[in-house]
Amino acid sequence: MPDVIKGNAVIGQSGGPTAVVNQSLVGVIESVKKCRFIPHLLGALHGVRGIVEEKFVDLKGIAQVKLERIADTPAAAIGSTRDRPDAAYCERIFSVFAKNDVRYFFYIGGNDSAETARIVNELAAEATYELRVFHIPKTIDNDLRATDHTPGYGSAARFVASAFMGEDRDSASLPGVKISVVMGRHAGWLTAASTLGRQDSTDGPHLVYVPEVPFHDRSFLENVRDIYGRLGRCLIAVSEGIADQTGTPVAVALAEKLGHRVERDSHGNVQLSGSGALGDFLADYVRAEFKQRYKTLRVRADTYGYLQRSFAGYASPVDQAEARMAGRKAVEFAMAGNADGSVVFKRDKGKKYKITCARAELSDVAKETKSLPRKYVNKAGNNINENFKHYALPLVGQLPVMGKIC
Amino acid sequence: MPDVIKGNAVIGQSGGPTAVVNQSLVGVIESVKKCRFIPHLLGALHGVRGIVEEKFVDLKGIAQVKLERIADTPAAAIGSTRDRPDAAYCERIFSVFAKNDVRYFFYIGGNDSAETARIVNELAAEATYELRVFHIPKTIDNDLRATDHTPGYGSAARFVASAFMGEDRDSASLPGVKISVVMGRHAGWLTAASTLGRQDSTDGPHLVYVPEVPFHDRSFLENVRDIYGRLGRCLIAVSEGIADQTGTPVAVALAEKLGHRVERDSHGNVQLSGSGALGDFLADYVRAEFKQRYKTLRVRADTYGYLQRSFAGYASPVDQAEARMAGRKAVEFAMAGNADGSVVFKRDKGKKYKITCARAELSDVAKETKSLPRKYVNKAGNNINENFKHYALPLVGQLPVMGKIC
Repeated sequence: MPDVIKGNAVIGQSGGPTAVVNQSLVGVIESVKKCRFIPHLLGALHGVRGIVEEKFVDLKGIAQVKLERIADTPAAAIGSTRDRPDAAYCERIFSVFAKNDVRYFFYIGGNDSAETARIVNELAAEATYELRVFHIPKTIDNDLRATDHTPGYGSAARFVASAFMGEDRDSASLPGVKISVVMGRHAGWLTAASTLGRQDSTDGPHLVYVPEVPFHDRSFLENVRDIYGRLGRCLIAVSEGIADQTGTPVAVALAEKLGHRVERDSHGNVQLSGSGALGDFLADYVRAEFKQRYKTLRVRADTYGYLQRSFAGYASPVDQAEARMAGRKAVEFAMAGNADGSVVFKRDKGKKYKITCARAELSDVAKETKSLPRKYVNKAGNNINENFKHYALPLVGQLPVMGKIC
Repeated sequence: MPDVIKGNAVIGQSGGPTAVVNQSLVGVIESVKKCRFIPHLLGALHGVRGIVEEKFVDLKGIAQVKLERIADTPAAAIGSTRDRPDAAYCERIFSVFAKNDVRYFFYIGGNDSAETARIVNELAAEATYELRVFHIPKTIDNDLRATDHTPGYGSAARFVASAFMGEDRDSASLPGVKISVVMGRHAGWLTAASTLGRQDSTDGPHLVYVPEVPFHDRSFLENVRDIYGRLGRCLIAVSEGIADQTGTPVAVALAEKLGHRVERDSHGNVQLSGSGALGDFLADYVRAEFKQRYKTLRVRADTYGYLQRSFAGYASPVDQAEARMAGRKAVEFAMAGNADGSVVFKRDKGKKYKITCARAELSDVAKETKSLPRKYVNKAGNNINENFKHYALPLVGQLPVMGKIC
């Protein structure tokens, strides 16, 4: 057994919160509480920013009953940050660590956080300063490499699946065309989850558009016309990040086509995130096309927004348990003498869903993202096939079952 | 005991669906199944439209296990309609009833549906045709008169309360200004529910704007500046129906102020419903005002949309039980020889929350709506006070409890 280093630990949370990011935090706290080699566990307020500003809160003294409540609470209990440290920032982090005798650093976040962890540990190695650095994955986008799936995805997917189950019944009650925009700039994992609650071939979403497939606006209208003609309604799931063949975001392309003024910031970028623009433009586009043929057609659009990552009280129990386990395992790996790594999930090959945790190299998780594989998308590129259910259904917990009369 | 009429029954669902409208449907079905005086219970597909088109489905033969599943399913299981029958339409309804020996009509809907029920029963009375007509309230808006609250409100309020609990934690994680737009054209009941999960004085929403209070755009900016200055973040709940002192919808007023083109239909009406426009305009307005003072301020807007009425798997258990009871009571009242009425809830004066059902006149429920009383709004008109919790908390069921570290 390797030598265990004695010293303090720092933990931070980074990036867009999830419903279970505090489960991982609590997993780390629980494990460190049991560990006599770590006198203090310092929670960095708002991630790396709290480190460089030396804003810490002591986490070892929190009672278990309070920890359980925190674990069940969405978003980052010690604050998150959008800061993406460069080399100089990482050096400031390292110097604060050295000053405070910090020997363990746990960082919960996406691929940028893995990269931060990697750089900090390189600096420590160069300085021959003993440091254990562990990244604990977290993202509703499910776009990290080297892991079967990410903590946070299951709960967001559960929200999206339940949302579309209700939307489908709503659309059957009051038929029309309904467009709902799901989070996901570059990867369609979360949008694909819109299909998890479908029970039969007439259930929506009837069309699903993900960023991995270039969006053709004319094919889209043809798809809508076909479905509406056949079912008298059409429910559509769209990733916020869909783009046309030239890579232009669909919201921008449609805005120009519909004659809307497109506002750009000083860098020439269009501000479309956190807005209902994509859904509204798609709805306008459908309305303009069909207004002659279907005079009373109802076309509506919603953009799910932050609820997907923050809604309270509806997390996936599977996701909760796994996120907690990821936090515990990070401490375990660090105690076992590993210098650094990211906690990844490996799925059992057997029929029954089972996950084990493993250590991956930080460089295998950092920077690049993992797209939704083409094998989960239908041939026409406008829907998700049943293979995806085998992958994703075990992650979301029990979904409600819809009862129908007609 | 009055004579019980023998004859068939028709049931229909109308207007925007809720998460528990099928509970009321199943309540009626269950009660009618036990009743030997009603040979057939005909479900009118898509409400009054199904009646005039004679599109019916037989409901008496559905097994209880299937009924339970239907009851738990959001939206209208036999379809809903936006049709608002005029006198001629009501005559067609009545003639279909006479032709099919229909002696009982149960109509689940809002105040328009109560008015439809009222007119149909007047026609029956004029023709000395024995008919029992019962309205069963349903609306997430909670804006019906004569009842303590409406079935459907508790579940939508539960969704909105949980949404804001998560939003509040999200906003504490990554501070900024967040605006979330809640359904409610004329009444602020649902927007007020955004405050139900607040646990202490720093919890959001920090500002709440309802249609009952005229919106002043400059006061709004001052309110945001004050809160942001004090807490470093500001979470805002806004009813979709807020209007300025002249009655102009805020989305329209702000669009013109911000120099956006406002599109109007052939009647001169602005199409803003089912769109993210209000939230996006409010966010633009805040950004424009604060961009000098706070260069990196994050301002985001979401519009909750249909999820508030249709989300699957998160209904309020209290609301579910009460909606079921309302359906059962409608049949009971009709069997007791009452000619017509609406099922309303009376709240016990005691400390413990308790509801009993009563019969109200259709004319007391029809047409007009019930606003959020001023006693629930703070003096400044920009928040909801604690009195509202006494009223609304019992309706939403157990809410999650948020755990905090800082």
